[in-house]
Amino acid sequence: MTTRYAPQNPDFERIGRESFAKQGAMGLLGAELLRIDPGFVEVGIDFRPGLSQQHGFFHAGIVATIADTAGGFAGFTLFPPGAGVLTVEYKINLLAAADGERVVATGQVIRSGRTLTICQLDAHVIKGGKRTHCLTGMQTLMCLVGRAGVTG
Amino acid sequence: MTTRYAPQNPDFERIGRESFAKQGAMGLLGAELLRIDPGFVEVGIDFRPGLSQQHGFFHAGIVATIADTAGGFAGFTLFPPGAGVLTVEYKINLLAAADGERVVATGQVIRSGRTLTICQLDAHVIKGGKRTHCLTGMQTLMCLVGRAGVTG
Amino acid sequence: MTTRYAPQNPDFERIGRESFAKQGAMGLLGAELLRIDPGFVEVGIDFRPGLSQQHGFFHAGIVATIADTAGGFAGFTLFPPGAGVLTVEYKINLLAAADGERVVATGQVIRSGRTLTICQLDAHVIKGGKRTHCLTGMQTLMCLVGRAGVTG
Amino acid sequence: MTTRYAPQNPDFERIGRESFAKQGAMGLLGAELLRIDPGFVEVGIDFRPGLSQQHGFFHAGIVATIADTAGGFAGFTLFPPGAGVLTVEYKINLLAAADGERVVATGQVIRSGRTLTICQLDAHVIKGGKRTHCLTGMQTLMCLVGRAGVTG
Repeated sequence: MTTRYAPQNPDFERIGRESFAKQGAMGLLGAELLRIDPGFVEVGIDFRPGLSQQHGFFHAGIVATIADTAGGFAGFTLFPPGAGVLTVEYKINLLAAADGERVVATGQVIRSGRTLTICQLDAHVIKGGKRTHCLTGMQTLMCLVGRAGVTG
Repeated sequence: MTTRYAPQNPDFERIGRESFAKQGAMGLLGAELLRIDPGFVEVGIDFRPGLSQQHGFFHAGIVATIADTAGGFAGFTLFPPGAGVLTVEYKINLLAAADGERVVATGQVIRSGRTLTICQLDAHVIKGGKRTHCLTGMQTLMCLVGRAGVTG
Repeated sequence: MTTRYAPQNPDFERIGRESFAKQGAMGLLGAELLRIDPGFVEVGIDFRPGLSQQHGFFHAGIVATIADTAGGFAGFTLFPPGAGVLTVEYKINLLAAADGERVVATGQVIRSGRTLTICQLDAHVIKGGKRTHCLTGMQTLMCLVGRAGVTG
Repeated sequence: MTTRYAPQNPDFERIGRESFAKQGAMGLLGAELLRIDPGFVEVGIDFRPGLSQQHGFFHAGIVATIADTAGGFAGFTLFPPGAGVLTVEYKINLLAAADGERVVATGQVIRSGRTLTICQLDAHVIKGGKRTHCLTGMQTLMCLVGRAGVTG
């Protein structure tokens, strides 16, 4: 899963990290931005009871939220300076219960267009050192040049 | 949006409410179970900074998490006693920025099968009394008879 | 399911019908454009063995193709003159086997933006006069102003 | 993209090929089953005007139909003897116009469960020897033991 993309914005990492830090939801959930490369982002989160569904596993929506975020930032790394990112849609399949002490989600750009970017989303749950692929998904992002924060 | 379904489990509301209360994630996010009818569930959440993305709106993943939960419980209301619910997959489209002081998400069963249930998901954001449709989606659930908490 | 949209292109119906007639695939499958209103399109198809899967029902992919087409033309009806339409993505759930002598698919615009349009897709199969809801889906379209036929 | 799966049905290839031959839609479209391995299937189709959309490219729905079929047969290869396959849902993103003389679609099982199977779908269009990734998708299949042809 090598990244094949050249960023248009040399400052993508600093701006990406600042933007991630501004997401209140990432703070509330305790998510960390582990890696931000051109077209590839990794986000990790440790289990706590506040992230659970009724059986004590990570809530699927929380895992999907982390994966959505990883994809959104992966797309952002390839945008021109000044552009904002908007999630248009995503679809996820849950492959296994997210039963473990940590989840790592990744977003990988698979098509980077002028207006739309498509990312593959994945998440693995880690339990006692064993990694299980628990989510896979696809996401469509929109690049908002000069319209940051405004919907498409 | 009338509910056309007869529940198999007369105790669906009590068990549904207890199960919702056990979801740590709903507590962390501050989500409330507003309505639980056969095949239809409504979940509400008030804005706080801990639910935001970088522009101060509700994070799309959080809105989707509430919608996923509404759908999961909507499916659950029609299951036989003792059955658990598993989200197989969902797909959401974001129709508008979730800019407001409250989000209300609904899950509506549109097909209830022995094994699989399909729900429509929707969310509206409320700002100064104005409701805006901000998310629509579809979800596939699995009924786990005698296998609660085990993935399909 | 009333249409609430005002078309920007007064000639949408004639151009839509001409474009439909140019789709070789619609001819091969024997699909008819039954109705083209602003934001709402209906496409019908009669069963023949060449449309079947292995059990003699309509092939799910064929039903989805008709639904995708209905949605694409529904979006097109609201575009400005000279604009082309591109399907970005779609997701369908199959609700019942498409066992019958006719399928009618509809595309209904649920959000019409400057760049992106979101449609709800549905299909019903008709057998001996009984209509069964066999497909539901969601579709994202892109409006290509001055770039007809070019991908986004 | 190696296949890691052991088939339960030693006769999967013969039965798969017979079932493919019974799909009238594959005959009408002119699709060929190029490869059927455990958990991986490839289907090819040559361009003709009857497969086109209004600009003379392959119709996206046709490409998706071929991909859906590849995924369905990929899942089938891992099912026990006597089991039928049902497509529950799929979601596709179109990455490029399917402009070329041939499309090759693949279905790859990424999770094989007792009841549900998840496949990745992809399609490439070939023009003058150049391959372009034109579709990616995900599909959920259901294994129907003793209920062949009956919906879930």
